[in-house]
Amino acid sequence: MRLRNIPGAEETIEASPFVVQDPASFRGRWKEAIFPGVKRFYLEIGCGKGIFLHTLSERDPETGFLGIEKMSSVLLRAVEKFGAEERANLRFLRMDAENITECFAPGEVDRIYLNFSDPWPKDRHHKRRLTSREFLARYAAVLSPGGTLEFKTDNEALFDFSLEELSAVHWTVTEMTRDLHRSPMNEGNVMTEYEDRFSTLGNRILKLIAKPAGA
Amino acid sequence: MRLRNIPGAEETIEASPFVVQDPASFRGRWKEAIFPGVKRFYLEIGCGKGIFLHTLSERDPETGFLGIEKMSSVLLRAVEKFGAEERANLRFLRMDAENITECFAPGEVDRIYLNFSDPWPKDRHHKRRLTSREFLARYAAVLSPGGTLEFKTDNEALFDFSLEELSAVHWTVTEMTRDLHRSPMNEGNVMTEYEDRFSTLGNRILKLIAKPAGA
Repeated sequence: MRLRNIPGAEETIEASPFVVQDPASFRGRWKEAIFPGVKRFYLEIGCGKGIFLHTLSERDPETGFLGIEKMSSVLLRAVEKFGAEERANLRFLRMDAENITECFAPGEVDRIYLNFSDPWPKDRHHKRRLTSREFLARYAAVLSPGGTLEFKTDNEALFDFSLEELSAVHWTVTEMTRDLHRSPMNEGNVMTEYEDRFSTLGNRILKLIAKPAGA
Repeated sequence: MRLRNIPGAEETIEASPFVVQDPASFRGRWKEAIFPGVKRFYLEIGCGKGIFLHTLSERDPETGFLGIEKMSSVLLRAVEKFGAEERANLRFLRMDAENITECFAPGEVDRIYLNFSDPWPKDRHHKRRLTSREFLARYAAVLSPGGTLEFKTDNEALFDFSLEELSAVHWTVTEMTRDLHRSPMNEGNVMTEYEDRFSTLGNRILKLIAKPAGA
């Protein structure tokens, strides 16, 4: 489903006031240019239909939220869903996460969310996992001092891989649980659609919060 | 202070109804013999003056709590402090933690607490640290299926050492925070005297919960 090409998706996305065009032109000035007045700037990488950020942006009007999604066909859903609303602190971007350092300046991002990222189970694809050391280096390059990565998954193998990668590049895991919905860390948790569906089936949700080396 | 020998300490401890004598004789039957009617059996290793367990035992009458302390002079304080009370689900033991497998049968212990254990900062003393792999093997030998280790410290180096040791022997860290008092994991936290004193000075408290490999 995720790979299906939807005719007209690009055009609809480009026409939406929710979608940022030419992101590299805002490098270093996202807060002033896109989210004037906010105190913080948070990204979600792989935002899917954007429901997680939609909820967060409603709860926290002082933070600017930007959802990054690679697939036009998926981002189209977000745009269609929220297209009629006005929400000054929520925007989306169609982009490959590999390129984030081209669009965000060092220290510009205060938090990065990864929710139920693709586990890429084959060993030879490990660099594609959004918690590989290659991606961690990109996050470290844009996170502010004190900025954090928040990662949720129901895939224990991906979680263990992530812990190893974080450790290998000397990030610090500051909070962690292997059963979020039965943990005090669940307080204030915003469930994604996937999380709701899979936890109902009995899958445990794992979560960690980490910060780059030296931060 | 901890090393001071107090004349008469041994005698006072031996005479106290709070202190278990001849612990090896209860191996495999602590719940029936010492804590009849309880549902769970928890240890604290290095219980000091016993204030942490005293609070827990009041909150949770269905659990039997046993505090283990090596130093007679320290255990004496617990005995003197609570000596006049009756508390069926709280007992103490003067013992070196190295010997726990002689006193507890496999699967007999449902939880082990380590609070602000001695960091033994010199490298050559690493085996004395209560989270060394040598001690972890002893804990794994007595913990019940689903049984956990709960460890709190304000010593970041000891915490990092503990994470490495747990990883090396394939324990699973199920919950973790590097700033307990600002974490949702703090809900229901019972502070030790040391914790109260040092967190007031601004020290962050680190906590983890872990379970043995395969459990």
